[in-house]
Formats: sequence, structure tokens, C-alpha cells
Amino acid sequence: MAGNIVYFPYETLKKLSMDAFQKFGFTEKEADIIQDVLLTSDLFGIQSHGMQRMVRYHKGITSGLIKIASKGKVVFETPISAVIDGEDGMGQLIGHKAMEMAIEKAKKSGVGIVSVRNSNHYGIAGYYAKMASDQGLIGFSCTNSEAIMVPTYARKAMLGSNPLAWTVPADPVDFFFDCSTTVVTRGKLEMYNKMGKATPDGWAVNKEGVPSTNAAEVLGNISRHEGGGILPLGGATEISGSHKGYGNGMIAELFASILSQGGTSNKCMKDGRSNICHGFMAINPAFFGDPAEIKAHFSTFLQELRDAPKADGQPRIYTHGEKEHESVARVLKEGVPIIEGTMVEVQDLCNELGLDFKSYFGDYVPKAPQTMFKGNY
Amino acid sequence: MAGNIVYFPYETLKKLSMDAFQKFGFTEKEADIIQDVLLTSDLFGIQSHGMQRMVRYHKGITSGLIKIASKGKVVFETPISAVIDGEDGMGQLIGHKAMEMAIEKAKKSGVGIVSVRNSNHYGIAGYYAKMASDQGLIGFSCTNSEAIMVPTYARKAMLGSNPLAWTVPADPVDFFFDCSTTVVTRGKLEMYNKMGKATPDGWAVNKEGVPSTNAAEVLGNISRHEGGGILPLGGATEISGSHKGYGNGMIAELFASILSQGGTSNKCMKDGRSNICHGFMAINPAFFGDPAEIKAHFSTFLQELRDAPKADGQPRIYTHGEKEHESVARVLKEGVPIIEGTMVEVQDLCNELGLDFKSYFGDYVPKAPQTMFKGNY
Repeated sequence: MAGNIVYFPYETLKKLSMDAFQKFGFTEKEADIIQDVLLTSDLFGIQSHGMQRMVRYHKGITSGLIKIASKGKVVFETPISAVIDGEDGMGQLIGHKAMEMAIEKAKKSGVGIVSVRNSNHYGIAGYYAKMASDQGLIGFSCTNSEAIMVPTYARKAMLGSNPLAWTVPADPVDFFFDCSTTVVTRGKLEMYNKMGKATPDGWAVNKEGVPSTNAAEVLGNISRHEGGGILPLGGATEISGSHKGYGNGMIAELFASILSQGGTSNKCMKDGRSNICHGFMAINPAFFGDPAEIKAHFSTFLQELRDAPKADGQPRIYTHGEKEHESVARVLKEGVPIIEGTMVEVQDLCNELGLDFKSYFGDYVPKAPQTMFKGNY
Repeated sequence: MAGNIVYFPYETLKKLSMDAFQKFGFTEKEADIIQDVLLTSDLFGIQSHGMQRMVRYHKGITSGLIKIASKGKVVFETPISAVIDGEDGMGQLIGHKAMEMAIEKAKKSGVGIVSVRNSNHYGIAGYYAKMASDQGLIGFSCTNSEAIMVPTYARKAMLGSNPLAWTVPADPVDFFFDCSTTVVTRGKLEMYNKMGKATPDGWAVNKEGVPSTNAAEVLGNISRHEGGGILPLGGATEISGSHKGYGNGMIAELFASILSQGGTSNKCMKDGRSNICHGFMAINPAFFGDPAEIKAHFSTFLQELRDAPKADGQPRIYTHGEKEHESVARVLKEGVPIIEGTMVEVQDLCNELGLDFKSYFGDYVPKAPQTMFKGNY
């Protein structure tokens, strides 16, 4: 539905990414962080935020939106908090640094909260939250982004998709909950557009602020900045809980753009700057009791949820993180699915960077028209 | 639709509540906390959690569910955190104590997180979050409760309505966001039932886990513990974001029942105990910069939201907290609206406690049949 899908081994794409990001001008260590954020997204089955964004990051660097030399400057710091000015640096590197600080603070002081301004798109919010749970801590991350969410009763997008991600250590699979505060992301609308299908009710509004199921119309309005956009989780009215999704989007602004005094979503992607802000928090369960006991207690509840009686016709109740966990095993075995349109871009990029496409992909020749998602970037 | 509504001055109901809660056995100071939580709910226009619960709290005390002597025991404490065992005490008092601790910790250390187990129903989550914003801090509170939320693809309720409440200082009105993580609360279903109207799609499922718009059927199943219940914010399927509301409900469990190692929602209201757990957090903006500048920055964004272009036919875009703020002014002027059924109960309660109903309400004689909401309690 969005071009043919081709599959490549994870290691191949990792090697390509390592080489490409170093050609962009990043150090080996930096390239490793960036590729891990992107490929983790692909491993988790979130293609829209994975490999396919590599070319866009390159465009961001060549256009000056992303400044390679900027490493993120700590402008305020206490034992439990920090504010970082990203100085237009690469979002993944600024985000990684910020979460590492939050984790260090949580280990020592119990909690670490880091708010970041003037950054760029940082990939999936959940990656950073996961950095904390990988070390036995509770993780949280959020970001704002170019306005795409139309607040309840408005006709103009004022907030980004503003994901909130939470992770909690658990057996056998960590809790991993990473969701936009809109009903859906722009990528989902683009999929419906490509399929020529009407979107479900409650996803979007047109430029008059009236609910619309016409994905082409909505996407056109968004890209021409004519108004309308995607609705908050909860849809168009308070009856269905629209104000709740809108409020959750505001919490992402709070930790990202408010505490850092950075650009709110309605100021993102303007005047040649991204102005994107992020928020990070790590909480140390050892400051509440025995971490192993807390983990076991949570794991029991998760198992009770999985064991609960299923709805008619439903084989399974998922807890958050199971799908991503199973996706990793599947993708490592079957390969990373990539839209051929992306591979055309990758080939062009290799030529531009002086990398030998054949050395990664052998005799494979991408031939699809470019039909990849067009995201916020 | 639910009996006649009568209006009484706030001061009258406050005096009655002060007297009644002292008759229940609470000290004057305790009664003042409890009445303030209840009447703040009425002032905010959230009748379901206000005065009308007084009689139910009395029943809880006489049945032994709520233990007046229990004041909440701190069982774990660090400079940024605490765990409190409520020992089945009055939810409002345990909650108030816990939030005061979180606030004190945030003032000194930047953040305070307090997790509470073995408590009782504590009223509106937003009350406790507001305690923090009233003192210039960011406030958060959440609670679990008797299972009423059916997780995505389940047929049995496993989580409570699990509200998350956030408050942030702002001009001219503080941000106040207090919402259940279900699409709606049980009270809303009861209103539709009383009106004999079908509920909107995406609110509830029947005992087979199949979407139902029959409020009477759903409420009957819930009270007979036959299965079904209310859906997470986002409805029945992942298409509409069901897993997002379910995930948000899990965050309430995390801060309430997981960090405190208390009863998760599926263990609440069992074996003669409430087992209700709460979570509290206060964050000090002074640990991120100049609090006045942060407040001004946030206030600017809120004003931009209010000033954004409106959807066709919509006169106004609200920011969270405006409706509650305006409700306070209206209720103080027009009186607190009370369902007559509640007044019948209040009269009975006065007789039982030896309070003179006439001394509060003069010649008013409640005559409505008892048709008040039947909530979780």
C-alpha cells in the first residue's frame, strides 16, 4: 500500500547507518547512538520513526536546521534537575545526553528531571524512557513537535503529536508505553490517503474545524498550513473525551517546552529552526522500597491483566511492551522491513556521501517510486 | 433527570459538613479538610464527588471500611519520596497528609513523590494536585479504585476509572487538568440510564466484551459483577486509541498501587476493605529556572490557545481549569446545586447524628425520591 516492502538484515542497516552518520560528520560514538535510536524504532515495528528518516536528517543537516557541532549546553542544574539548551543539535544526541543525566540523578537522588529546549526531532520518545528501565529505573520521556493537534473546539493545530512515553521494569517483559496524545499520528493518515480509504470518525478536522474523514483534504490543509489537523485522543468533542487527549498533550509541553522555557509546538519549525523541546524523567524505585519486590508486584498485576477473560473473538490481552518485544524477535529473524521508496533515497544518499550501495545491499536495485511517509520533518 | 435540583448557600453546606464530620468522630481540623475536599468538588461543578458522597462516607465508617483512628503511617521515607500505609483511614485525610509531605519535599529537594496504600476513596484527584499549585508548585495526583475499566480486548474490568490530575501555576487561571483515564465515569452512564438514552458508541462493553450502548445492561452487569464495564479513553479498539487510555490507567496504578506495593484496582473493594491506593507528586519550578518566568511563559501559551481560531460554530476554546474557575464564581453566587434525593439522605443523617436539619435548611422539606448517582462506593 505504500510501495513494495523489502527486508534487510538488521546488521546490514546498522553498518550502513554507522557509515552514513559518520559521513554526515558525527563521531563513531555519536553515530552509534543515532543509529541505535533509529533502528530500535524499526526493531519495535515503528517504521515511521526508523531508517526511513535518515535521509530527512541529512537534509536537516545540509539545510542548517540541525547543527552537528552543537552538543547541548547545560544551562541550569540541581541534584534532581537540569535544563539543557540543545543549540539546534541533533535530537538523538541531545536526548541521549539529557536522559543519561536524568538517570544519573535518579540513581543518586531518587529522581532526575531534565527539560530540553532548542533541539530537533529525536525519534521515538520511548527510546529514552527505555534507557532508564534498562537500568532498573522508571523512565519517562516526551517531546513536542510541529503543531498538528487541533485543540478541542479549535480549527488550527496548536500542539504537536506530543507523545508521552513511560517504561517500568517488569518480568518477563518491561512495561513500555509510548503513545502520541493525538488519536493517531500523521503517518496513519498518510496510509489511509495512499489506500484511498476514508479515515475512521474522530481522527481529523478540516480547515473549518469540522470533523472530516477525507485524509487527502486534511493532509493537504496541513501541508499548506490552511488549518485543521489531527484530533486529540478522545476525538472532536468532550462527549468522547477530546479535552483529555488535549490535556495530555499539554503535559508533554509542560515537561518539554515550559520547564525549559523553549518553543511551544505552535512555534516549532519556524524561521529556519526546529525549536523542538523534550522532557525526561527517571525515578528510582529503591527510593520507595525493595526494587525487586516492586518489580515482582508489578509483574503479578501485568500477568493478571494478560490472564483476564478475553472479549468475544479476541485471542489475547496485551500489556504494553509485549508487541515491541515480539517485534524485535521477528525483525531480527525476518529482517527489517523497508519501503522501496526509502531504498531509492538511501541509494541516492550513498552516491552523495561516497558510500558504495552495493557493499551493503549486493545486487539489489531499488526500483519503486518514492512513496514513503511524509512526516513532520 | 435525576430528581429535582435544589440550591443552598456554600456556607450552609460547609457548616453542616463541619458539624456532621465531627459527629462522625473526626476532630475539627480533620472535618475541615474533609469538607473542603468535598465542597471544592461541588464548587468545581463535579457534583458526583461532592456533598452527595457524605452519606456514603458515613456508611463506610459505620461498616468499618473506613477507620477514623487511622491517620496514615509513613513506612518508607527519603528526602524526595515516601510510602504511606493508610491503614484503612479516611481517604481525604490520608491524601491531604501525603500531598503535604510531597509539597514539603518539593520545596526543599525539588521533587516530592508519595505513594499510598490501604486507603479509601479520596474524592477528586485534582484537589490534591491543586494543593501544590496553590503554593506555586506543579502538582500531580492519581488514584486507583474498584475495577470498572475493561482493558483493550478484555471482557472483565481490571482497572478503576484511575484519574490522573495535573496542575500548573498560570495567570490568570492555574492549569487544572483532572480526568479519568476511562472515556467517561460511571456517573455519566447512570445519567444516560436515568434519561433512558443510548450511550454514544465507544463508552462501554457488555459482559461478552462486545461494545454496548445499553447503559442499563452495562450498569447491571457491573453491579452484579458479571463482566463488562467502561472502556478506556480511546474506545474499544486500537484504531481509536483504546490502548492509550488503558496505558494511562496503568500510570495511575504505577504511582498509586505499584510504588506503594498496595492493592491494584482488581483487588479494590474486596473482603471488607477498600484497598484503594493513591499517588502524589509535587515539582518545584524553582529547580528549573525563575518560577515567575516559567509561569509567564506558560501563561503566554495558554493565552495563545484561547486566542486560536475557533471551529465553525464554537464560540470558545477552553484551557484546562477555566471551567472550574468559572464554576466556583457561579456556585458561590447561585448556591450549590444538590439533587433532592441527596437532601433526603442528609435529613436522615441529621436525625441519626442528632443534628437539627432545620437549623441549616429552615423550612425546606426534601420530598424527592432518592435518585442520586450510585458510584463506586
